[in-house]
Amino acid sequence: MRIHVVTPVTTVGLRDVEDLRPLVGHGTEVTHSLIEQGPATIESHVDEALAVPGTLRGVAAAEADGADAVVIDCMGDPGVEAARELVTVPVMGPAQAAMHVAAMLGHSFSVLATQEAVVPMLHDLARRYGVAERLCSIRAVDIPVLELEDAARLRGALLDAALDAVVQDGAHVLVLGCTGMAGFAAELSAALADRGHPGIPVVDPITAALRLAEAIAGMGLRPSLRTYPTPPASSLTDLVAP
Amino acid sequence: MRIHVVTPVTTVGLRDVEDLRPLVGHGTEVTHSLIEQGPATIESHVDEALAVPGTLRGVAAAEADGADAVVIDCMGDPGVEAARELVTVPVMGPAQAAMHVAAMLGHSFSVLATQEAVVPMLHDLARRYGVAERLCSIRAVDIPVLELEDAARLRGALLDAALDAVVQDGAHVLVLGCTGMAGFAAELSAALADRGHPGIPVVDPITAALRLAEAIAGMGLRPSLRTYPTPPASSLTDLVAP
Amino acid sequence: MRIHVVTPVTTVGLRDVEDLRPLVGHGTEVTHSLIEQGPATIESHVDEALAVPGTLRGVAAAEADGADAVVIDCMGDPGVEAARELVTVPVMGPAQAAMHVAAMLGHSFSVLATQEAVVPMLHDLARRYGVAERLCSIRAVDIPVLELEDAARLRGALLDAALDAVVQDGAHVLVLGCTGMAGFAAELSAALADRGHPGIPVVDPITAALRLAEAIAGMGLRPSLRTYPTPPASSLTDLVAP
Amino acid sequence: MRIHVVTPVTTVGLRDVEDLRPLVGHGTEVTHSLIEQGPATIESHVDEALAVPGTLRGVAAAEADGADAVVIDCMGDPGVEAARELVTVPVMGPAQAAMHVAAMLGHSFSVLATQEAVVPMLHDLARRYGVAERLCSIRAVDIPVLELEDAARLRGALLDAALDAVVQDGAHVLVLGCTGMAGFAAELSAALADRGHPGIPVVDPITAALRLAEAIAGMGLRPSLRTYPTPPASSLTDLVAP
Amino acid sequence: MRIHVVTPVTTVGLRDVEDLRPLVGHGTEVTHSLIEQGPATIESHVDEALAVPGTLRGVAAAEADGADAVVIDCMGDPGVEAARELVTVPVMGPAQAAMHVAAMLGHSFSVLATQEAVVPMLHDLARRYGVAERLCSIRAVDIPVLELEDAARLRGALLDAALDAVVQDGAHVLVLGCTGMAGFAAELSAALADRGHPGIPVVDPITAALRLAEAIAGMGLRPSLRTYPTPPASSLTDLVAP
Amino acid sequence: MRIHVVTPVTTVGLRDVEDLRPLVGHGTEVTHSLIEQGPATIESHVDEALAVPGTLRGVAAAEADGADAVVIDCMGDPGVEAARELVTVPVMGPAQAAMHVAAMLGHSFSVLATQEAVVPMLHDLARRYGVAERLCSIRAVDIPVLELEDAARLRGALLDAALDAVVQDGAHVLVLGCTGMAGFAAELSAALADRGHPGIPVVDPITAALRLAEAIAGMGLRPSLRTYPTPPASSLTDLVAP
Repeated sequence: MRIHVVTPVTTVGLRDVEDLRPLVGHGTEVTHSLIEQGPATIESHVDEALAVPGTLRGVAAAEADGADAVVIDCMGDPGVEAARELVTVPVMGPAQAAMHVAAMLGHSFSVLATQEAVVPMLHDLARRYGVAERLCSIRAVDIPVLELEDAARLRGALLDAALDAVVQDGAHVLVLGCTGMAGFAAELSAALADRGHPGIPVVDPITAALRLAEAIAGMGLRPSLRTYPTPPASSLTDLVAP
Repeated sequence: MRIHVVTPVTTVGLRDVEDLRPLVGHGTEVTHSLIEQGPATIESHVDEALAVPGTLRGVAAAEADGADAVVIDCMGDPGVEAARELVTVPVMGPAQAAMHVAAMLGHSFSVLATQEAVVPMLHDLARRYGVAERLCSIRAVDIPVLELEDAARLRGALLDAALDAVVQDGAHVLVLGCTGMAGFAAELSAALADRGHPGIPVVDPITAALRLAEAIAGMGLRPSLRTYPTPPASSLTDLVAP
Repeated sequence: MRIHVVTPVTTVGLRDVEDLRPLVGHGTEVTHSLIEQGPATIESHVDEALAVPGTLRGVAAAEADGADAVVIDCMGDPGVEAARELVTVPVMGPAQAAMHVAAMLGHSFSVLATQEAVVPMLHDLARRYGVAERLCSIRAVDIPVLELEDAARLRGALLDAALDAVVQDGAHVLVLGCTGMAGFAAELSAALADRGHPGIPVVDPITAALRLAEAIAGMGLRPSLRTYPTPPASSLTDLVAP
Repeated sequence: MRIHVVTPVTTVGLRDVEDLRPLVGHGTEVTHSLIEQGPATIESHVDEALAVPGTLRGVAAAEADGADAVVIDCMGDPGVEAARELVTVPVMGPAQAAMHVAAMLGHSFSVLATQEAVVPMLHDLARRYGVAERLCSIRAVDIPVLELEDAARLRGALLDAALDAVVQDGAHVLVLGCTGMAGFAAELSAALADRGHPGIPVVDPITAALRLAEAIAGMGLRPSLRTYPTPPASSLTDLVAP
Repeated sequence: MRIHVVTPVTTVGLRDVEDLRPLVGHGTEVTHSLIEQGPATIESHVDEALAVPGTLRGVAAAEADGADAVVIDCMGDPGVEAARELVTVPVMGPAQAAMHVAAMLGHSFSVLATQEAVVPMLHDLARRYGVAERLCSIRAVDIPVLELEDAARLRGALLDAALDAVVQDGAHVLVLGCTGMAGFAAELSAALADRGHPGIPVVDPITAALRLAEAIAGMGLRPSLRTYPTPPASSLTDLVAP
Repeated sequence: MRIHVVTPVTTVGLRDVEDLRPLVGHGTEVTHSLIEQGPATIESHVDEALAVPGTLRGVAAAEADGADAVVIDCMGDPGVEAARELVTVPVMGPAQAAMHVAAMLGHSFSVLATQEAVVPMLHDLARRYGVAERLCSIRAVDIPVLELEDAARLRGALLDAALDAVVQDGAHVLVLGCTGMAGFAAELSAALADRGHPGIPVVDPITAALRLAEAIAGMGLRPSLRTYPTPPASSLTDLVAP
C-alpha cells in the first residue's frame, strides 16, 4: 500500500519524508510532495484558503499516480472535504484522525496548539467532528510554525502547556496541535510521567492520519459518494487551469 | 452606509446589482463585483475552494475602497471566516444570516437547496452556526444553479419542496437554499397560504445577509479580533500575488 | 418604519425615548411606552411574571396603533413568546437579539449581568435560543437596576467584569446584560483596548433588538403562525379586562 | 404531609380534588384551589401569562397556610420558576415531573398533546429540562381542553395518537400532554397491549407531579436558593396588590 | 409497598437496613440483601463487572419473593439496565435517581465522589441520563469506600469539596457521590449555610433511589418492555447456574 | 504485532479465527479465544452482564501471554471499559471502532442490527462515543445471532434494511450491527450500487476493531491511566477466583 502525503505549503524542508516512513505499518510505503503555489506556512484561515487549490491539485495528482490513500499534512485539515469529492481514494486530515484517536483513549483531551490565533479554528474542527464534548481545553505554546525547529524551546513549552492541561483543565489525553510537532509525543508523555502524571497518552496528528488512512484503505473503504459526490467536469477544468 | 457584495464566481449576469438595491434600508448603498479568477458556479466543496482566493481579494479591495460592510453572495458562506481575518469591517455570509433569522422567527426551519450534492454542506453550516437543533430538514429542488433562471420551473419545484417540508418534516419556517433564488420568498409564502399553510415565513438569504450586515455595521460593531486576528504580512503578500 | 418600544415596568424615567432614537437606521421612527400595571423593575422571575400581562396590553396597543414592529425593553425577554401569538408584527427581545448578534461576531461570548440572582435566567435564555454552546460565562457587576444610573460606578464595575470574562473565561465577545446599561458598550470596548485587549466587540441589547426588529420588518418577515398561533377570542377577552 | 394543588385557571369544575386524593402515597393529604383572577383555560402562551400572577398568589397562600409542597396543575408548568423564588417549600410542575419519570422508564418518549398550538411550548419545556434528546415526538389529539370531558372521544383519540407514536415515531414510553387527561393512563397502556404493543408505560403528569413533590418534600429537600433567590420585598408588594 | 435493596458487594456490615427504613414514606417497607458472590467494594469498572451477575440474581430473587420495586445500592448503578430486562417491577439506581432529583432542584449540580478513579464513570452516567449539561463538576474527597465510616474525616472532606464546588465551580445543588455517604446530606447543607452559602440542597443518592422507586411503583408504572425486553429463557438459565 | 481476539461467549464455532487473519495488515498476527464461563450468545444486557467476568479473565490472560492489543468480539463492546483498567495494552470494541470509522467516511450513518431488542443498547453506545448526532437510524434485520449463518437469508435481510436506511433515513454510510455479520460488508455495498446507490461504504465492526487496535498499538499509544486506573489488588483477586 502507498500513502501519499501532501504538505500544503511551499516551504521546502518543512517536512522531511524520511521522518514519515517509520510512522506507518509493515508494507506501507510513503511518498510526499509540497504544493507548487500557496502560502509559506498555514497559521490563519487566510493561509488555509490560499493553500487549498494547490493542495487539491496535489491530491488529484497523487490519485492519478496510483496512491491508495492521501494525507493532508496540516492540523487545519485544509481542503479535506473538497479532496474527498475530487478523488475516490481515502483522504485523511490530521485533526480528524487525532481527535478520533484521542476520543478512543480516554475521557477528555486537550490540544496543544502553536498560537492563540489558531485556537478558534481547532474548536471549530472539534465541533465539526463531533468531539467538542470531549475537548476540555486548547492551550497555546506561543511558538510560530517556522520556529518549531528549536527543539529545546518546543520541548519546554509543550511540557508547560501539558502540565496546565492535565492539572488545571482535567485532560486525560493530549493531542499535539500542529503536524510540525511530530516526534515529540512519546517524550512528552514520558516527561509528564516524571512529573507525577503517568499514563497520559499524547497523540501525534500526522502519525494518526497516516495510521487511520492505512486502516481505512486496508479495510477497502472509501468516503461516501453521497457525502462527497464527484464534482461535474466544469469544476475539474477550473481546478487544472487556475 | 455602503455595503459591497462579492459574488464569488466568474459568470457574468448571475447577479444583477439592481436586484439588490431594493433589499436594503433607507440610506444604504449597494455596490457589487464578481471575482476575476475562480469557478463559474459554486455547487461543490471543490468549487468553493477555487472561489475563495479571488473572493478574498475582492473583499480586501472593497474595504480599501471604503465599504462599511461586505456580503459574500453564496449560500456556502465561502471564505467568510478568512475574510473576517483579512478586513476589519463586518463580513456577512447568507447562510449564517438566514439561519439566525429563521431561528428568530419560529420553532424549526427547513432549507430548500438546489441539489442533493450540497445538502451535507448545509448541514455542516447549521452545525457550525449552532442552529442544527432547529433545522428539521433540507429538501432539494433538483435544479442546478445555472438553470434557476427558469422561473416557472423554480416556482413549482420550490412549492413542492416547501409543502413536503411543512407537512412531512414539521417546518415552521423556510429558508431558500441558494442566493440565486432571490425574489421568490414572498410568493412562496403566499402560495403556501393558498394551500392551507398560512403564516410560514420564507427567508431569502441574500436579503438576510444584506440586512444583518447593515444592522451590525449600523451598531458600530466589528467581528472580534480575538476570533479573527489579522494575519501576518507574509500571508497578505501571498494573497495579492497568487 | 416605526418601531414601538415597551419598557415592561412602571418606573417613570427608567428609559428615555430620546436615547433610543439615535440607535436605529435612517427613516426609522421610535415610539415608547411604559406599562400601566406591573413591577417597578425586573430583577427576578416573580417580577417578570407580574410584568407580562401589562406588557402584552402595551404590545397589542402598539400594533393597533400602526407600529411595524415592537421591542420589549428588558433582558429577560419577558412575554416575547406570548406577544408573538398576540400580534402579527415582529416582536423582538433584547436577549435573543444580542445573543444572536454576539454569535455572529465571534467564537464565544460572556454576558455582564446586573446581579447573581439573574444569572440562571440568562443561562436559560441562552439554552432556549440555542447559543448555550457559545456562552462561555456570565459575570455579575453587583449593581441593582435602580442604581445603574451611577455612571462612574457602572463603568468601573463593567470593566472589571469584562476583564475577568476576557482573561479568565476566554470571551471573544461581550454582551451587556441589562437594557439599562445602554450607552456603555462602545466605551467598554475602548477601555478593554486600552488594557491590552483590542477588538473585543461589546453588544448593547436594546440596540441589537431595535436593529434586528428593523431588519426583520424591513425584510417583510413575520414570526411563524405555526409557532405562534393566534389565541382564541376568549384569551383576548381575558387580556383586555384583567 | 400535605400537598396543595393550584389549578391555574378560573373554570370551576375543571379539577375535582377527589380525583387527586388516590394519586398520592399513604399519609399524604391533598388540598386544592383555583385562581381568583386569570384565564378560563390555558391553551397558549398568552393564557399562561395571564394565569401566572394569580397562580403565584395561590402558591404563596398555600405556603402561608402550612402546605409542605405545592403542585401547579397545568402541563405548561406556568409560573413554576417564579413560584420557587416566592416560597421555600418544593414546587413541582407536571411537565418537568412527567418528563423526568419518562426518562427513567425507557429509551425515548412521546407526548400526546391536546392541540398543535401547544406543541412548540412542549418542545421548549423538554429542552429546558434537558430531556429533548429523549423526546422522539409530540402528537396532538386535536381536542380543546374544555372538550376533554368527552371520555369516549378522548379515549379514541389518545389510542390513535399513541399507536402513531409507538409505531411510526419509535416511542418506548408515552406521556399524557395535559393534566386534564388524568385517569386515562392505565387504560391507554392496556389498550396498546391489546393492539400488540405490551409494556408501554403511560405517564400521567398530575400524578407524576404529586408523587415527585411528595418524594422531594419527604427527603427534606428544597429548591436551591442560589437558583431561586428570594425576591426583594418590593416585588412581593407588587404581587399582593396587583 | 415493599422495596427491596440489593447492596452489590459481599462485605457484611457495609449497609445496615435499619438506616434505610426512616428514608421511605408511610406504609413502605424496606428489606435488604447483599450478594453472595462478588467484590468486597465497588471502586472500579472491574469491581462493577464482578458485582453484576450476583446482583442480577439478587434482583430476580426479590421479585420472585414479592417485592414491589428494587433498588441497587451503589452509585455506579451497576446492572440496572440488565435488571430491568430481568424483572418487571421497577428497578432504580442511585445515580439516575439523584441526578434527576438534582436537576429538578436547581440550575446546576456537582457530585462529591469518593476518589478520582471513579470520576469518569460518574461523568459517563451523567451523559447516559441526559443531565451532563447540568453537571458542573465532580469533586473527589479522596476517601476509599471502606474508610467512609470515619465520620469526622468524611464530614470535613465533604465540606471542603462542597465549598470548592459551590464557590469555584458554581454549583447550585450537590449530590453525594457514594451511597456509603448516606446520612451526611442534611448536615452538609447546614454546614454550608453556616459558611455563608444558605439553601444549597444536598441530595443523598440512596434516599433518592428509594423515594423515586416508591413514587414510580406507587404510580403503577413499570420500565418499558420496548427498552427492556424480557431475555429469552436461555439467558435466564445462564444466570441461575453460573 | 499480535492482536488477541476474545469472543465473549461459550458457543464453539461462532467465530473461526481463520476468517479474522485476512482482515489485518502485513505482519500482524491474530490469535483467538472464547470465554470459559458465560452465555451462549449476547442478545441482551443480561447476556452482556454474564459475559463480562469471563471476558475480563480472557483479556488479562492475553496480556500476560504477550499480546500487543486485544479486541472484544461483540457489538455491545461488553467489558471494554473494565478491560482497559485491567490491562495496559490497547483494548478495542467493535461498536466504538466502527462508529468512529463511519463518522470519518460520511455525513451520517445507520446501523443494521440483528434484532429490535438490541436497538436501545446501540443508541446508548452511540451516545457514549459522542456520535449520536451522526447516527441517523438503526434498522433491525430480525435474525437472531445463532441464525446468522444462513447466508442467503442474511444477505437478503441486510439489503432490505440497507435500502430503507439509505432511501428513507438518509444514511450516507452503513455499519453492520453484529460482529457475526463479518464478510458481508463489501457485497452489501456492491448490491446497493446495483440498485442505484453507488459509493455507500459499509463498515464491518470486527474488521474496524482489528484495524484500529493495530493502528493505536502501532502508534505506541495506550488508554489513559487517568481514565482507566489500575484497580487495587483486591479487585484482581476477586477476578481470578470467582
